[in-house]
Amino acid sequence: MSSKRRDEIVAQSAQLFRTYGYNGASMRTVAEAVGIEAASLYNHIKSKSEILQEICFKVANKFLTHMDAVERSQKTTVEKLEDIIRIHIRMMLEEYEHVYVSDHEWKHLPEPYLSNFLNQRRSYRRRLADLVQEGIDRGEMKNIDPYVAVITFLSAIGGIEYWHRSRKAINEQEVEDNMVAYLVGGLRK
Amino acid sequence: MSSKRRDEIVAQSAQLFRTYGYNGASMRTVAEAVGIEAASLYNHIKSKSEILQEICFKVANKFLTHMDAVERSQKTTVEKLEDIIRIHIRMMLEEYEHVYVSDHEWKHLPEPYLSNFLNQRRSYRRRLADLVQEGIDRGEMKNIDPYVAVITFLSAIGGIEYWHRSRKAINEQEVEDNMVAYLVGGLRK
Repeated sequence: MSSKRRDEIVAQSAQLFRTYGYNGASMRTVAEAVGIEAASLYNHIKSKSEILQEICFKVANKFLTHMDAVERSQKTTVEKLEDIIRIHIRMMLEEYEHVYVSDHEWKHLPEPYLSNFLNQRRSYRRRLADLVQEGIDRGEMKNIDPYVAVITFLSAIGGIEYWHRSRKAINEQEVEDNMVAYLVGGLRK
Repeated sequence: MSSKRRDEIVAQSAQLFRTYGYNGASMRTVAEAVGIEAASLYNHIKSKSEILQEICFKVANKFLTHMDAVERSQKTTVEKLEDIIRIHIRMMLEEYEHVYVSDHEWKHLPEPYLSNFLNQRRSYRRRLADLVQEGIDRGEMKNIDPYVAVITFLSAIGGIEYWHRSRKAINEQEVEDNMVAYLVGGLRK
């Protein structure tokens, strides 16, 4: 049970789940993409559902770990939000398939993972809204509804999907810097 | 062939297409939602595909008509962009089902509608990017990549989806004003 082979299965699955949806991608097509027999797939992973769980929870862990570090840091609130916005942009650029699947296919998670995933997401967004409120209270940011601010920047970052699908006239760093300028600039006083 | 009944069919279809996807919603469920026999549905509309075409092209027409009017107006470029961002937000608030279907289910359009729809969308986004560039050239807006600016605000507005699905702690007008403050504020110098 090489963990490298398992990682490859998860990576190929992420790509297939994004392209065809969780329901549209079969374990047979995963096996084909990895280049092994469908039967030997099960030496590495129990089920399609287990792959989805691994993708969704790995992405959630990265964001959570980053959020914990940012909250503990000594930065201003605007700087903290910039750090978080930047990690979301980078993840959309560098781990696009995984983030996309985690954002769009989580609804196919089985219980108890589904409820747990949604609870974590709600709590994560609440922490983001609290940060926005803190920025307003400290006079660093304009007076904006924190809930609207959070759905605005999270959804805006999802727009990097179009960049992945387009002819890419600009590079990753330019996408990151321009989007940060827009989304952090819009929060500042 | 009452046009009122036809409008009702399209409205119910929009809701079903959004909830179950174009492929997941059958003409039988449309008939049930409208409260007529499946057979008499075809007195009003030719096919499921025709309904999707009507939804997608009506939404596209509204945005195009508005864009034409804005471009002809005597406003500053920032004001023009604010007008356009506002109409996108209002459409997401007031005609959510139609806009959602037009944004997510267009890929099921048959040719020649599919190519035409995508051409119109590309051209519309180019006009938006040109407006951003004009705002920069006139010194009204910060120097930001116009392509990134456009995918950022269009995707951000798509985030109103979360508001529709949530407990709605704030009202439509507050969503509109806060999102405009964020997205137009972020463009200004």
